[in-house]
Amino acid sequence: MKPLLNIIEKQSGAAFTLKKNDILTVIDPMGKQVSDMVLFNADDYKEKISSGKSLDFEENLLLTKGHNLWSNRSRKMMHILEDTNGRNDFLLAPCSPETFKIMYNHNGEHPSCLGNLHQHLQPYGIGIDDIPTAFNIFMNVQFNNDGKLSVLPPTSKAGDYIRLQAQMDLLVGLTACSAEDSNGGTFKPIHYYIETAPEYTNRKLL
Amino acid sequence: MKPLLNIIEKQSGAAFTLKKNDILTVIDPMGKQVSDMVLFNADDYKEKISSGKSLDFEENLLLTKGHNLWSNRSRKMMHILEDTNGRNDFLLAPCSPETFKIMYNHNGEHPSCLGNLHQHLQPYGIGIDDIPTAFNIFMNVQFNNDGKLSVLPPTSKAGDYIRLQAQMDLLVGLTACSAEDSNGGTFKPIHYYIETAPEYTNRKLL
Repeated sequence: MKPLLNIIEKQSGAAFTLKKNDILTVIDPMGKQVSDMVLFNADDYKEKISSGKSLDFEENLLLTKGHNLWSNRSRKMMHILEDTNGRNDFLLAPCSPETFKIMYNHNGEHPSCLGNLHQHLQPYGIGIDDIPTAFNIFMNVQFNNDGKLSVLPPTSKAGDYIRLQAQMDLLVGLTACSAEDSNGGTFKPIHYYIETAPEYTNRKLL
Repeated sequence: MKPLLNIIEKQSGAAFTLKKNDILTVIDPMGKQVSDMVLFNADDYKEKISSGKSLDFEENLLLTKGHNLWSNRSRKMMHILEDTNGRNDFLLAPCSPETFKIMYNHNGEHPSCLGNLHQHLQPYGIGIDDIPTAFNIFMNVQFNNDGKLSVLPPTSKAGDYIRLQAQMDLLVGLTACSAEDSNGGTFKPIHYYIETAPEYTNRKLL
């Protein structure tokens, strides 16, 4: 059976669970869009995705096909099976209302990845302070030898995707990014679908 | 009055509080040693130092004199007043017992920054899962254009120091690093002292 395609509308988010070995595919349907992803151990939300542990164990700033995303307890949460674009960011925290004040000099309301993650993770009991630095799929953060960072439009083209396999049961938060700099000022949706691991294909019948 | 010099013995840690505007000086007394530092809002430990927010707002991987360390709530926690060595890391999570298994192929007991931070922060009610990626003072993590990371011995010389001013009341965790790669295999102490902000100089008499 073909897995159901899920649509995250522009400047919004989603949360869902995965079983160990399930495969998540995140698609940039129109190109140049970013999706912030956070992960929690589905059985204990105190275990969560850690940029610091992932960069340390993978010995690389740029995680792509073949790399793993690690937890704050030094366990693998996801393995990256495919990555047709090949550029993601794991340095910058999700954009928040304060991001738009401090970095964009924008006052007033503005949708944000942190707000959208929180909205969808709150029903699971996740507080806003508990949301860690996200794995920013398709995000194009460039650095030079002096460490200077610049956020450029993504290099992803329409249809580019990343496939990640869960290494434990997971709660996932995912967005279609709300920040102008991250997606070149174009707000677009993100698509995703889940391939259920063979050992779980009958679970909905149970 | 000259402030009291505090000594963190090799492969150990400390925790203490600062009032807003207090100045913390962290010294590498012998050279080539690393000190992992984590920060919490003294009035609400859910607010803590955030690598993702700091790198985003400072737009740089390499934070030194003139930069700020930011919290997960997008507020300044510390401002770096001086930095005689000038190389620190804010990418890698504190070394943990698993670090030595995974990165060093070392089995059995090994002191770690995460363990030492937890030991000293636990009396304040901080759990091990609540300890974020630290600001790694004097740590020399090099990166190339492909993002490849390598941990080299620090460039700090005996007597090098960093001075940081608290931007809010803080709980601080600080270590003398336990990881061979971080300090070139030499385990050494870290020294620190606190200059009390003028408006608080009489607080001990109250």
